[in-house]
Formats: sequence, structure tokens, C-alpha cells
Amino acid sequence: MTILDIIEKKRDKKELSKKEIEFFINGYTNGEITDYQASALVMAIFINGMTDEETVNLTLSMAHSGEILDLSKLNEIIVDKHSTGGVGDKVSLILLPLVASLGVPVAKMSGRGLGFTGGTVDKLEAIPGYKTDIDINNFVQNVEKIGISMISQTLNLAPADKKLYGLRDTIACVESIPLIASSIMSKKIASGADKIVLDVTVGSGAFMKDIKSAKKLSEEMIKIGKLAGRETVCVITNMEEPLGHNIGNSLEVKEAIEALNGRIAEDVKEVVLELGSYMVVLAKKAEDFDTAKKLLLENLQNGKAFEKFKELVKTQGGDISYIENAENFEEAKYIEPIYSEKSGYVYNIDAKEIGKLACSLGAGRIRKDDKIDKSVGIVLLKKVGDIVSKDEVIAYLHINKPGQLEKAKEEVKQIIKIRNEKQEKLKTIIKVIK
Amino acid sequence: MTILDIIEKKRDKKELSKKEIEFFINGYTNGEITDYQASALVMAIFINGMTDEETVNLTLSMAHSGEILDLSKLNEIIVDKHSTGGVGDKVSLILLPLVASLGVPVAKMSGRGLGFTGGTVDKLEAIPGYKTDIDINNFVQNVEKIGISMISQTLNLAPADKKLYGLRDTIACVESIPLIASSIMSKKIASGADKIVLDVTVGSGAFMKDIKSAKKLSEEMIKIGKLAGRETVCVITNMEEPLGHNIGNSLEVKEAIEALNGRIAEDVKEVVLELGSYMVVLAKKAEDFDTAKKLLLENLQNGKAFEKFKELVKTQGGDISYIENAENFEEAKYIEPIYSEKSGYVYNIDAKEIGKLACSLGAGRIRKDDKIDKSVGIVLLKKVGDIVSKDEVIAYLHINKPGQLEKAKEEVKQIIKIRNEKQEKLKTIIKVIK
Repeated sequence: MTILDIIEKKRDKKELSKKEIEFFINGYTNGEITDYQASALVMAIFINGMTDEETVNLTLSMAHSGEILDLSKLNEIIVDKHSTGGVGDKVSLILLPLVASLGVPVAKMSGRGLGFTGGTVDKLEAIPGYKTDIDINNFVQNVEKIGISMISQTLNLAPADKKLYGLRDTIACVESIPLIASSIMSKKIASGADKIVLDVTVGSGAFMKDIKSAKKLSEEMIKIGKLAGRETVCVITNMEEPLGHNIGNSLEVKEAIEALNGRIAEDVKEVVLELGSYMVVLAKKAEDFDTAKKLLLENLQNGKAFEKFKELVKTQGGDISYIENAENFEEAKYIEPIYSEKSGYVYNIDAKEIGKLACSLGAGRIRKDDKIDKSVGIVLLKKVGDIVSKDEVIAYLHINKPGQLEKAKEEVKQIIKIRNEKQEKLKTIIKVIK
Repeated sequence: MTILDIIEKKRDKKELSKKEIEFFINGYTNGEITDYQASALVMAIFINGMTDEETVNLTLSMAHSGEILDLSKLNEIIVDKHSTGGVGDKVSLILLPLVASLGVPVAKMSGRGLGFTGGTVDKLEAIPGYKTDIDINNFVQNVEKIGISMISQTLNLAPADKKLYGLRDTIACVESIPLIASSIMSKKIASGADKIVLDVTVGSGAFMKDIKSAKKLSEEMIKIGKLAGRETVCVITNMEEPLGHNIGNSLEVKEAIEALNGRIAEDVKEVVLELGSYMVVLAKKAEDFDTAKKLLLENLQNGKAFEKFKELVKTQGGDISYIENAENFEEAKYIEPIYSEKSGYVYNIDAKEIGKLACSLGAGRIRKDDKIDKSVGIVLLKKVGDIVSKDEVIAYLHINKPGQLEKAKEEVKQIIKIRNEKQEKLKTIIKVIK
């Protein structure tokens, strides 16, 4: 078997065997197969597709290309949660302490933001003192001790996926359903998940731009989950407009603190409760979806979720005075209100445009090694469907560079689109596939 | 414009513009575009194809990626000849002095052999003293002075093609009609051809394994020629069995000397006269094909072609005593007859197998920097369709390493297949496309 035979086979639209896929993944991980050979194979996969069996074999090969996190000592069903990414997505910050408060063990490794989407690790690091790079023994110990730990990917998890993902980004091969599905699932399997709840975002601010492809991706991941023995639930959620109100790292932590104190935006709440209920049921901490939802709502209201969040922050070395008094967070130098120039209904707030704007203010990275500015961002006071009066404040810009102000103001006005016709609120939960 | 946009477009089966193709070729030649990006684009081209316009733009971009040989000072129509490669192919050694003897200027740069196919440069270098790496001014001067020069590719011709060809070889993307066609035509255009005669070989010992793909390749090259203003004729010839009798460098030079003295194998003669007649007509040295053929036959018989060959060898620094007395060539240490084990008709002599055997004896290269052994090779006394008696000598092995003898003998016996049924001779000229 040589890599040439494998490339040729996929080039000619034939099915690759388990052995061939393993040969490729192992060879690529250890450097025997070059980037340009992997590139040719990836393009052939992109164009000619993969069968379900090929996709699951690719997933498992990538999952086993590095360490596999062993969480068996927790003696619990490990339910992992993952989102395909979005703008203003602070769900993990709220959802994970919430389910942990119901006894669902949370051993979560998250990523950093890149491009217009944010990353949970960047948000956690906006909390002074919070350590996201603790070693794996401490990580597991924390989960044992308080039922939750949230860190960055310190382990060498699925290195093949990391390498392949980096390559795909440079050869216009990102948007392939089998490649996206196997990339996500391989990381989840490597991080020790027994069961998986996926937030598959769809719309302007997501990878998947339309419901059809979000469904296809979901079905693919559920098939992989089934074949790999990891029960998977996909919740397709709306990412046309940003989630909640705040976009930016400290700003989103603040919104999460508010939410954990019961003051939660409707769309964020829907997503948290939907994903959370499936997590609780899969972890066998409740009989059924409705019971789970009731329990979650209670702990969101009675402060137990918030207590769990404080426990998490404290255990990770964070300063909980910030959590207790969110005003302690350092604010951006300039907080500038944006006034509406007309009355009417908000009919569009393009999530991608808002994400790009926040990124340009310093909240995100364009390159992997860019530094981020924790305090900057955008606060949206209005959501799609809301009524707006002329001269009403519709948003705030939080910025540190005064030179950015005028252009950013104009951009926010352009992005928040208002017209006379009545506009319905957007549906948050589009579909659940399991 | 970025390389990502270009890859994405071809990935989605869209047509690339002239500007996009030039952007890719220039960027890849100067190293701004990486191998893995080129690799993804090449695979997308392989699978999704290219239109005629894309193919001609690729050809011209590659042709202009380096120097273009300027032969305008010769003030003649420059007709170049090229073969897609084969086993025992000594056609250039006979054909080019022959057409030069009729006043067709020959400024020929040839390649070296790789794998089971031989290369004209290796054969020329089997003549003691013959310099294939003279500088470009001397090359043009020689053509001016004696009407012919045959050298190796010293100029930096079509470097993009060279780089892309090397890449294609490592990513299973060789057998693509638009990529092969543009590769061949770009080199011909860069080497200053006004008109082109192509020997498109088909069969076991050729790139093209069946007539259908040989026709497709021919048609593609003729279209490119038309769009690029270079009239092109393709002669599809048989490469199921080796061409002529001798395989190996000195051995093929010797066969060429015999041929130029009028003792020429029937298949070699047919190919030489067919290609030659088109060259003479395209160069306007004869009115029509039949006149050209008559003139060529005359000069093959009357010694004028042989005189031109001697003039060429002498001008290039070669020792013409070898040409005048072919016995002067150093022979291999062991010349071993192969006897037929049965009577019957030869029905198959697989050209690729013979080529691989000759290569293993030392006549060819497996890697680019391998040294070749000029004297070794195989002499086939029989061709497909010939009658054979038991115990008759059917071939000779010329070898320098006695340890190779027994295995090679067995292999030759295996390759020359004999059976009772009468077998027709193979048709040499399969089709002419112009």
C-alpha cells in the first residue's frame, strides 16, 4: 500500500478501506506523508465525497492519532457539548455550570477564537487569574472534586485533525460535510466523551449557511456517533443574528454572569435549556426531557448554577470578586451609544458582520498568534423583531482606539437594519436531530 | 485574487480565467504559492477537467514561465518533433538527420530517460565525445551552419511545467489529458516551435494505454496548437511491442546507424517516414505528403541522411569513427543468446516489461540521479507476428553483471510469448489526427 494508491482510489471515486484511511492518517501525523500528498487526497475527498463507513473510519483514525483522555475513573457517563461556532455565543459559560449543578460531570476542553467567531477559552481568560492551561491530572481532579473543569486543549488530542484542519484552511477545503463531521467527532471522542450534544449553528454567523447543509452535517455526525458507539444529539440553532446581547470577551462573561443570576436573554435561554435538557437526560440525571428542563430552570433561578460557576472560577485560580461584582471588570476606554436614525422594526443584524466588526476592534484574532483585547466589543440592545424609535439607543460600542470610533459607528448603523414592516422574532431552535 | 479563490472555483467545476491561470502559474513558479496549494488545484483539475480555453491558457502560461528560445534569426519555419515516449524508440536519431538532409532546420532539445522509457539525450551521449550540454548560442550557430543540432534541455524552458510535472508524479495526477497536453505543448512552444509533429504512442510501453485516450490527447493538443497559432499534427503509433529491434543506449545508436544506411526495421521505417513527411510538408520543403515521403526515402537510401548524422556528431564533438564503424562501440561483457523453447508465432512482446528489464540491467534510471550503463540492453530478433522454430535464437541479452543473467534470461522467455495460432503483425501507424 502506498499513498499514491490511496490518492488514486479516491481520485477515481472509489471507497477507501479502514486500513487505507489508517495508513493515511498515521503517515500524515508522523510526517511520512507530505502536505502536498494530503492536500491532493483532501481535495479528492472534498469533490468525490466519502461513504458513512469511510467517514467513521476517518473519525476514529483521527481520534486515535494522539492521546485519548481517559475519564473512566470518574465512573460517570461523560456527556460532552460542542458548538460549531457563532457570534456572541456564551452558551458554554452558562450551560456547563448549570448542568454541573445537577450532577452532570463536565470535563470540557475548549478552543480559542479565530476569524469572526469567538472561543470559550478567550472568554474564560477574560476572568483575572483564571488558568485554562492546567495539566491533565489537575483537570480530572477538579472534575472529581467539584464536578466541573473548563480548560484549553492542553493534551495532544487528535493531532491528525489539527494538522488536517490547518491544511484544509489553506486549500479551500473547509466546507466539506464529511471532513467537518469527522473533525468535530474525532475531537469529542479523543476527549473522552461517551455521549455528545452538538449545537449545530446555521446562518450568516455560522459555518453552515443554510438549514439543508446543517441538517446534512447533523445527520452525518449522528451516523458517526452511532457507528462509533457514542450516542449523539444535534440541536440546530439560529446564527443569523448574534446570540444574546453582548459580543466581546469580558462583555460576554458579564452577560453570562447576568444569565446565571436569572436575567437571561430569551434566545440564550432557549439554547441553554434545549442543549442542557439533552445533556441531563443522556447523563441519566433525569428521566425525560421535560423533567430535565424543569430542573435546569430551577437551578438557573435559585442561584445553584451561579454558585457552581463561582466554584469553577475559584478552583481554576480565578478571582471571584469579578464574578460577584461584574463592575470590577476593566471596561473599554470609550463606551459609545449608537442612536437609531429612524423608527420601525429591526429585521436583520448580520451575525458575521457583527463578528467581523468585533474582531476588527480587537476582540478576536485574524491570525493565530494575534493578541486579543478583552474589554472591547459591541452590546446590542435590540434583537431582530424588536420595535425601535428614532433617536433611541440601539447599541453600545466598547472600544479602546478612538480612531476606530467613527467608522465602527457607521458600520453598526449599517448592520442593524430597520424598516417599517412588522418583523417576527427569529426562531432560535430550528430542529433537533437524534 | 487569491489562490484560495482559484482553488475554490475549480473545486466547484467553474472555468478559470486567463488571469487566474497566470496568477497560479506565476505564483507557483516563484514560490509564493505552495506545493500543497498547487496540489489541491491540480487534483481539482484532474477530477473536474478544463475547457479548451483553460488548457491553452495553462499551456501559454507555462511556456512563458521561463525563457522562450528565439529561433527567428534562422529565418525558417521551425518544425519541432516530440514523442510521448516508448521503449526502443530511436526515431529521433534517424528522423532528424533525415529531415535535416532535406533542408528542414532541426533545433532539437531532448530529455533523458526515466523509468522504463529511454531518452534521446542518453542515447546521444553513448557516442564518445558527443556534447549534449552546449550553450544556447552554439546550439543556434550549429543549426545555422549545418541545419541541425540535438542537445539536452540546457535552457530554463517552461520551469512551471517542470515543477508541476514533478508534483503530479507524487500525487497520482499524471494521467490527465489537459495536464499532459499542456505539459507537452508548453515545452514545444518554449523551445521556439512554429509547427509541431507529435508521435503519440499508445499501448503497454506508452503513457496512453488505449487508442481512445491517445485520440483524446491528440485532439486536445491539436486544439491547443490551433488556439496558440502552432499548427500541429499528431501521429498515433503503436507501442504494444518495442520499436525496432534494439533496446539500450549504444544498441539503439547502432540500430540507428544501420537504419541510416538503409537497413531499417519495418516499424521504425513506417514511423520515420510518416512523421518525417509531415515535418517536411509543414516546413514547406515539399508540396505534399507523397512527394515528401519520396524525398525522404531517397535520402535514407542514398546516404545523405547518414552524412547529415555524421556532420551532426562531428559538430557536437562526437567521435565519428564510431559512426563509421559501429563495431567500435564498447560492447557489454556478456552477450547471451536466448533460445526459443517452442515453435510457433510470436503474439506478444510487452514493451513495458522489456523496458523495465532493460532498466534493471542498467540501461535506464529509476531515480533521476542514477548513472546509466551505456552498453547493456536487449536485442530482439523477432517481432510480433514472426514465425519461430524451437531452439532458434530469438533475442540476445547484453549484460555487464553476470549475476543478472539467469533471471534476465527467464524474464525474456516469459515476455516473448509464442503460441501455435498464426498472428498478424501489429499495425504501426494507428491514426493521424491534424
